[in-house]
Amino acid sequence: MKKIRNDELETAVIDWPVYMRRAIDLAGNSINTSPNPRVGCVLVSNQEIVGEGWHVAVGEAHAEVMALRQAGDRAKSSTAFVSLEPCSHTGRTGPCSDALIAAGVSEVVIACIDPNPEVAGKGVEKLIAAGIAVTQLTEFDALARAVTPGYFKRREQGTPYVRCKLAMSLDGRTALANGESKWISGSASRSDVQRLRAASSAVITGIETVLADDPSLNVRIDELNLHQDDLARNEQALAKQPLRVILDSQLRTPNAAKILSLPGEVKIFSLGPHDSVKNPPSNVEYLQTQESGKRVSLHSVLESLASDFSCTEVLVEAGATLSAAFIQAGLVDELIVYIAPKLLGSDARSLLNIAGIESMSDSLDFEITDLRQMDRDIRVVLKPV
Amino acid sequence: MKKIRNDELETAVIDWPVYMRRAIDLAGNSINTSPNPRVGCVLVSNQEIVGEGWHVAVGEAHAEVMALRQAGDRAKSSTAFVSLEPCSHTGRTGPCSDALIAAGVSEVVIACIDPNPEVAGKGVEKLIAAGIAVTQLTEFDALARAVTPGYFKRREQGTPYVRCKLAMSLDGRTALANGESKWISGSASRSDVQRLRAASSAVITGIETVLADDPSLNVRIDELNLHQDDLARNEQALAKQPLRVILDSQLRTPNAAKILSLPGEVKIFSLGPHDSVKNPPSNVEYLQTQESGKRVSLHSVLESLASDFSCTEVLVEAGATLSAAFIQAGLVDELIVYIAPKLLGSDARSLLNIAGIESMSDSLDFEITDLRQMDRDIRVVLKPV
Repeated sequence: MKKIRNDELETAVIDWPVYMRRAIDLAGNSINTSPNPRVGCVLVSNQEIVGEGWHVAVGEAHAEVMALRQAGDRAKSSTAFVSLEPCSHTGRTGPCSDALIAAGVSEVVIACIDPNPEVAGKGVEKLIAAGIAVTQLTEFDALARAVTPGYFKRREQGTPYVRCKLAMSLDGRTALANGESKWISGSASRSDVQRLRAASSAVITGIETVLADDPSLNVRIDELNLHQDDLARNEQALAKQPLRVILDSQLRTPNAAKILSLPGEVKIFSLGPHDSVKNPPSNVEYLQTQESGKRVSLHSVLESLASDFSCTEVLVEAGATLSAAFIQAGLVDELIVYIAPKLLGSDARSLLNIAGIESMSDSLDFEITDLRQMDRDIRVVLKPV
Repeated sequence: MKKIRNDELETAVIDWPVYMRRAIDLAGNSINTSPNPRVGCVLVSNQEIVGEGWHVAVGEAHAEVMALRQAGDRAKSSTAFVSLEPCSHTGRTGPCSDALIAAGVSEVVIACIDPNPEVAGKGVEKLIAAGIAVTQLTEFDALARAVTPGYFKRREQGTPYVRCKLAMSLDGRTALANGESKWISGSASRSDVQRLRAASSAVITGIETVLADDPSLNVRIDELNLHQDDLARNEQALAKQPLRVILDSQLRTPNAAKILSLPGEVKIFSLGPHDSVKNPPSNVEYLQTQESGKRVSLHSVLESLASDFSCTEVLVEAGATLSAAFIQAGLVDELIVYIAPKLLGSDARSLLNIAGIESMSDSLDFEITDLRQMDRDIRVVLKPV
């Protein structure tokens, strides 16, 4: 397989980056393909796009197959641009590399290699063995990974990609001293949180939040505020609720909690056995996990979510203590902060319970990856540095 | 004088809004015209701009005169677009309405009426009396005011336009518990603060900040980070430092304070007489003002700055208590918040000392007027709602 940079492309193939970018854009069409990667594919014949596809949801056709179907006979001798190495194994669907070979595709261009050990170069090998030229456009590697970060994180590090959502006032407060916090952020921000949930394999919270706020933490289709087209093409992806995960070391979650009552599976991680829980709801699974400082080990929980439940992207929606614990443990890949343009005053509750920073050099530093106004609020996305 | 909206313009003058927008843009060329308004002027003859001007700084030519000079003979029979009603009185320079009449301008288009009682319609009357048609493009009124908000606020309300600058971490903290705060925000934000100071007639701080931080609060030309062109055309505007104002009810400012030692005038507002101050520096004036809750009355200070020192735009750069007092008293027109992408933790110092908000309906609400990333930081500008 050739690996080339965009500036090394010869004149005849100078338009390859346009098609690869399109393939990556298509990958982003699906809000949730968990545990699979988001993948997009474009088939090009004589400088014309003859087929496009993306992986819609787990159990559905892979991106390459969708594009091949659209292209029909025109797939023959075309060049396939795929955001991820075509798979070589039979999972829920047959191997895409075989499908590309069978369709008579003459050349395959990929953005990155599949980290799944069942693939990991074998897809490329299969294509090459069939006489198909394969090229990796190395400059698209990062972009193709970023469209499906949890797939890579899980495969490469054994833990999901962790987003932590925070909502605060302009003065960094989450609620008044008395706990009042309803509607700190506006409806556009709340819809955005719904979309974050919908993109996640699991939503994680702590027992304190369950006891204090009795949250639902489910995806509500009518609050996603997605464009009609996006909603239609994500019907399958949205059919299943993300896991709802409660970190509850002492098993204090009441059976009547709203989070248990809604459709979808709930996983409760505790320190001890759950024999004491009377009449647990049937959608709830109790998991005993490792301890870390008298609390549930966050790292163990993430490992379990990745290995036992194939979680790729997870969303932490928790209070000031648990969110801070995830951040301070270095387990957060992305912070999403909604800032409402109001002041709640210095009696109000702090954004994060982080103690003991005694020097500016000990501050927890981030860099902004996205900043926008969302209706009346600000949304800022950050990565740790 | 005719007052018309843009959608009422006849075909022959359909391009008027383009010239008016240009005139308002030109007004913004000057960073500081205090106590005068920022004004821009465009002279148009046969659909061609023949002269442009703006008020550079107090004591310099008015916008109309600069544009007339540039146009020379071509000013005759031209149409003048001016962001503010041309003046009718002789101040530091002669009346602009006379200059326009003398140059043979045939028509004058303005965005708003001058609130200065010495003008206030008299400029328009003078032009009309000379046979010049005068039209107000009413839709530009707000924009022309916004380019020089302090001029209007002072004339209409007797107080300056008040900006309050705050710098904080992502979790709404201004400094560590031990006071360490140096370089919370990056150099782009610090340059922006320099530009805010340069635009101001006065920079206001409190005695606690003087004692704790010994700040300079001066404009440092080399830190403005202005484009070479902007710097060149603002030479006169930048020649004078903004007043540095200290609210110091008990006269505790040390003679050795940095804020006193730098070039420029300092005004210290206190509750009692200043007879006790030994050897005050010659650039410092002490002013006894009204009391409000054992502190200096903020409203009285603002009135004094407007009436005694002709301040138009002022910048509050103070600590968590004084900034909060300005905000809670409803005296802040604009909040400028720099947010550094770091967490300082819940032991760190609060952005604002605002106590007693016990219901979400009592929160202090703002709306965002500008949001941007400034190097690594966020800058958000807000107005109270």
